[in-house]
Order: sequence, then structure tokens, then C-alpha cells
Amino acid sequence: MQDVVELISKYGGEKSKSPSSFDEFTKAVSKAPTHPDAEGSGDCLGFAAKDKSGHLAPMRFERRAVGPKDVAFAITHCGVCHSDLHQIKNDWGGSTFPMVPGHELVGIVTEVGAEVTKVKVGDRAAVGCMVDSCRSCDACQQDLEQFCDNVTWTYNSTGKDGRATQGGYSTHTVTDEKFIVKFPDTLDLAAGAPLLCAGITTYSPLRHWGLDKPGTKLGVVGLGGLGHMAVKFGKAFGAEVTVISTSPAKEKEALEEFGADHFVVSSSEEDMKRHATTLDGIIDTVSAKHDLNQYLSLLKLNGALVMVGLPNMPLPIAAGSLIFKRRTLGGSAIGSIKETQEMIDFCAEKQITCKIELIDINYINEAMERLEKNDVKYRFVIDVAGSLVV
Amino acid sequence: MQDVVELISKYGGEKSKSPSSFDEFTKAVSKAPTHPDAEGSGDCLGFAAKDKSGHLAPMRFERRAVGPKDVAFAITHCGVCHSDLHQIKNDWGGSTFPMVPGHELVGIVTEVGAEVTKVKVGDRAAVGCMVDSCRSCDACQQDLEQFCDNVTWTYNSTGKDGRATQGGYSTHTVTDEKFIVKFPDTLDLAAGAPLLCAGITTYSPLRHWGLDKPGTKLGVVGLGGLGHMAVKFGKAFGAEVTVISTSPAKEKEALEEFGADHFVVSSSEEDMKRHATTLDGIIDTVSAKHDLNQYLSLLKLNGALVMVGLPNMPLPIAAGSLIFKRRTLGGSAIGSIKETQEMIDFCAEKQITCKIELIDINYINEAMERLEKNDVKYRFVIDVAGSLVV
Repeated sequence: MQDVVELISKYGGEKSKSPSSFDEFTKAVSKAPTHPDAEGSGDCLGFAAKDKSGHLAPMRFERRAVGPKDVAFAITHCGVCHSDLHQIKNDWGGSTFPMVPGHELVGIVTEVGAEVTKVKVGDRAAVGCMVDSCRSCDACQQDLEQFCDNVTWTYNSTGKDGRATQGGYSTHTVTDEKFIVKFPDTLDLAAGAPLLCAGITTYSPLRHWGLDKPGTKLGVVGLGGLGHMAVKFGKAFGAEVTVISTSPAKEKEALEEFGADHFVVSSSEEDMKRHATTLDGIIDTVSAKHDLNQYLSLLKLNGALVMVGLPNMPLPIAAGSLIFKRRTLGGSAIGSIKETQEMIDFCAEKQITCKIELIDINYINEAMERLEKNDVKYRFVIDVAGSLVV
Repeated sequence: MQDVVELISKYGGEKSKSPSSFDEFTKAVSKAPTHPDAEGSGDCLGFAAKDKSGHLAPMRFERRAVGPKDVAFAITHCGVCHSDLHQIKNDWGGSTFPMVPGHELVGIVTEVGAEVTKVKVGDRAAVGCMVDSCRSCDACQQDLEQFCDNVTWTYNSTGKDGRATQGGYSTHTVTDEKFIVKFPDTLDLAAGAPLLCAGITTYSPLRHWGLDKPGTKLGVVGLGGLGHMAVKFGKAFGAEVTVISTSPAKEKEALEEFGADHFVVSSSEEDMKRHATTLDGIIDTVSAKHDLNQYLSLLKLNGALVMVGLPNMPLPIAAGSLIFKRRTLGGSAIGSIKETQEMIDFCAEKQITCKIELIDINYINEAMERLEKNDVKYRFVIDVAGSLVV
């Protein structure tokens, strides 16, 4: 195992390398790794949920062979998104098992199909929430394939070949190059992995709602995996950022580590009143029940609150919260591959990554329990290369 | 009374007139008209609510003297807005009595202050929902004074002089010229009166949300005073208009009289499914309880639903209704004086007016009862000159 880690650290992402060393690397990551407790068979090893108990265990399964437009890459790291937890527990319905979760995959390309032009063997690559789409609908035509009605998700979905897709808590992946994101050599692989979901989910609405201008008064509700990224992007765009949180304990980190300009405790009526009608826009990352009207009151004339969390109950809206200041309430889902590439290149330029806790994959069940209690700063990332490839 | 009606019909709005005839006209409308049941004293006669019973009765009261920037006009017609009913019954709280309602006033200018340049005596003029604002806040500076925190409403509000404002169910009004709208000579005064509220309330969001382009797929929820105006504006902009209503009985009128292209019965699951994700935008005029998620499902990617009705209870929103198609939910309140002028000039050019029932002011209490049951096609307009000026 250590060998592979060293090889990845040595060769991963380097544009030039000696063929012999590189051969050694690819051989190591493609030798059908195993795990003492793994069930099943196939060329790929992952951690899977067998049922909705929420428990993950090692499983072998078969990835498809690399087609002419496919890219295979050895996964070095995979972020753990809160939606992974929802999916393995079937919280949203529609979960199918066995399920290998994970949609924040980064790694090193090990094989490319004959027609692939985007990356070459040895390059860094990444995959986010999607691995395919219909490619012909209005959304696809506009490079907004995340809204395609026939999108293929990275896991818990069915590919065009009729096979269940499996995610990034695994040794390698095979993906059409159209859904591959080129991962910059200058970004940390581990801390950069969550950009593929947490990053793009907050970057995209900031761009779409025009909250990316210097001087924008930006609010961020909730300082978690998504929220801390929204703060970082806001600061990178030159915005004046106000974090609105239920936890007074997060003030120091919000201001000192992430550079937020203001911190508002949402339970403090006085605090909320003082900030009323001061914000141009709000990114609301909260997926629990919360009072949107309270947050809308912070928006100026024509302000927009964009939901990127997904509460599983409807939230009551008073029409007056919108009408009397011509405010809007929006919702945004991840971003397109094109925009994800733009985001990740922006992150490389500005050296923006996530604040993570790097974990061994054998710790995943404990990590999920902690995630359920929001006990993570701010994203777990699985050290796949360091704990799964053996 | 008949004399005045004839005079208004003869001279109202004409740009040139013989001084002697005009003198006759102004004398008639300014002779402190009375009503056999009127209480109180003052130069103005109106119909007022004394308490929240919802009953209106004649009352005399004093309008302010015409200041250097003021315009006085004899009210020929005043529309009856559903919000008049809410206000006289104190449905929204904060009503003060006695209250003369009415914020869709049109008439003929009888006197102007020394510094007035916008209109001259004999011109047609109109007043909508506002008669003043702070003039210095961000909203005012942007010509969006309808969102000024210190706006003075046309009635049930307090002017800068500390006096209660009184609305258009009355013989004349005195208003700062900044809040006077020039009423085109080529528009019908009676059928044009509701443009000052019902018209601008639907015109403004169509413009602001970019739903004013030929080919726009526009939905209109509710075919009442506001809804039928939204349909007319939509058609004038070249949109393909779909009316969504709970009343199948309205289909014929929607399609044949107002020119809507499609009619959807909202209680028909089949109808709603067939129109799912077909609309660019929706103007929602309903002020009763209704399921916004059902209407949001009709919107395409990036579509917007704009509420212009004001339900008095919060409406539940499922985050997924917005997130998965990046839809927005907005709210809009009337429009600025600048935009109201633009709207009314557009109406003159396109010959757009409201469909009204012209009523005698002595019928107002029955009209209010019918309004409560939505039994009006589509707006009551009080024939003030024909029934109040005596």
C-alpha cells in the first residue's frame, strides 16, 4: 500500500515522467486490490451499503471496460457528502443496493480510450455528481446537463448500458471523458476533492445570481461543508461576507480562518434586526427545518436567497417576505461540467480548497455517525489510495 | 350632475379649449358637492368606512390647499381594488378610520401650483397607490419609490404634513406632481382607471423578470382583475399565454375575449401534467391559499413564478420545486411612477384597458359584497363624476 501512496505522491499529476516509473505506478493501482473482508468479485474494490441500515462494508465489483471515449482513473481521494448518508439510508426513497456511494472523486488517469482528447494517462482527473446525460435536451444543449431529466448520477443511478453506477468509495472509476474534470496539478488532491460537489454547489449560484462582484453584500446561512466554501468563494470574489449561524461557537473560525466580515447568530433577534435589509444575496446551505422568512428579511431590495440544501419538509413562505422588497427565493443544484472546470481552475488560481478531515476508509462507518451529528470540520475525505489500495 | 358629466365628456383631456367653457367646467366640479346623507364638513365629498364593519357611507372632509408643486384634479372615475375591501375591514391590521378607500383615480386637472410643469389645468391625470415617498433612500434614488420604507400610500397612510391620506372614492384629490401620472387622451377614463393598480401590478413583473419578449411562454394563475390584465399585457408583448384557473367556466372568455392561447384547469392532474415544465414564467395573482409547488412544476429550467397577490397565510415550499430546475419564486408590488407612466403610454399605444363594471357610488356596499365572492368581471369602477358630483 505504502508503495502506491508514494508513487501517487511522486507521479500523480506530473506532466512528464519516465515511462518505466509510470509503468510501475499503473501496475500497482491496477492489480485488482483486495480487502480481508471483501465480498463479491470483480476488478474494483469499494465500500458498499447492502441495505438501508446505513452500514458500509468492503465489496468487490466489476467496472466496465474502457471504451473509446472513456477515461479510467485510480481514485486517490473521495469526499464524503451528507447526501451519501441520505442515500445509503434511503432517506429520499429510490435507493438501490448494493450501493457504493461517493461523488467527489479525484485521482490519476490510468487508461484512456482511443478517442479521448481531454486527458492522458498520468494526468490528474476528477468526477463529480454526474457521469452521463442525454446530451440532446435543452438543458444539455445549454451546457446545463445537471438539469437534464435523464442525467446519470455517479452512483445509485443506471447508466446507458443498463448497469447500476457505483461511486467513489472505491479503487478506480471508468467515465466518459465528457464528464471528466481536469484536476489542476497545483491543487491538493485531498482538500480539493470536495470541490466536485460542495465547491460547485456554492460557486454556481454565486455566479448565476450575480453575487460574484466585488463589494457584494453576501450572506451565508450555515457554516458546514457547503457554507465554508461559500464564504471562501465570496471572499475570493471580493464580497463582504456575513455568516448567519445557529452556533455562536463558530464565530471565531468564520471570521479568523475563513475571513468572513460579520457573524450573525440567527437566534438573536437583536443581531438579526441589526442586519435587516443589508444583504444583496444569501446562499442558504441548511438542509434542516428553518424559517426562511427570517433570513429573507436580511435581504435588500431585489435581493435573492438561494437554497442549496435540501430540507425534506416544505418550508412556509409569507408572500410579503418577497413582495415588499421584490425579493426572490431560488434553488440551485451543483453545476455543469463546464462550470465545474471553470470553478476548479479558479480554485487553483486562488488556492481555494476545503477544510477537511482525512480519514482511513475503514473509519467510514464512524465518520457517517459523526456526520449525522454534524460533527465534522468541514468535510470528511477518504484517503482511498492510502487505505483501500493494498 | 348631468351637466358635469357632459362637461367632463366634452372638455376632459382636450388640449385646447375655450376659456369660458372651461371656467364653467371647473366651477361645476369645485362647488363643494354634497350628498343627502353626508356627515362632516370640508371641500371634498367621499365615501368612507367609519369602522371595520366593511360599510361605506358618504362623508365630507377637507383636502389640503394646492401647494406650489401640487396638482388638484376632479376625480371622474375610481377603480375598486380587492385591497380596498381588505383595508376597510382591517384584514391586514393597521387600518385607521374614517377611511376613504380608492387608489385607482383618474380625472381632470382643475388647479396646479406655481411650480408644476407635468400637467396643466384641463389635462387628464391619474393617481395610483402612492402619493409621496422619502425621495432620498436607495429605492427612491433608483426610481423604485414603491419600495421606499417611508412611502405615503394614497389612503390609510399619513402624509408628511401629518394628516391622514384619503383615497379616490371622492370628488377630488390634491397630489404632489411627482406622483401624478399623465393619463393619455386616447384611453377610456373609466376602463383605464384600474391600470393604476391592476395594470401596473402585472406589467411591472413582466418587465422586471424579462417575460416581455415575443415567444415567451407565460402562465397566468387566476383570471380576475389582475389576471386578465396579465393576459392582455402578455399578448401585447407577443407571449404565448396559458391561463391556469380553478374555474373551467372561464375558459371561453380567457381564450376568446382576452386571446389566451391555452387554458389549464388547475384541479385537473392530467391537464397540469401535460403542461409540466412548459412555461418560462408565471404571474400568480391568487391571494387565497394555494399550492405553489403545483404551479412551480409548470416552469421550465430557470423559470420564475412571481406572486402579486397577497395570501394572508404562509404557503409551504418544497425546496426541490426550486432546486432541480433552478427555478425562482419572486414577489412584486405595483410599480414606480416612472414605470406606471411607461405602462399607461404603452396601453394607449396598444389600446389596452381593463374589462370593467361601471357602478354608481351608491352601489358600493353591494359591490363590496360581490367582490368578497369574486363576483365581478373583472373590476368595479365607480362612476364618480356621474354619481357623486352633484
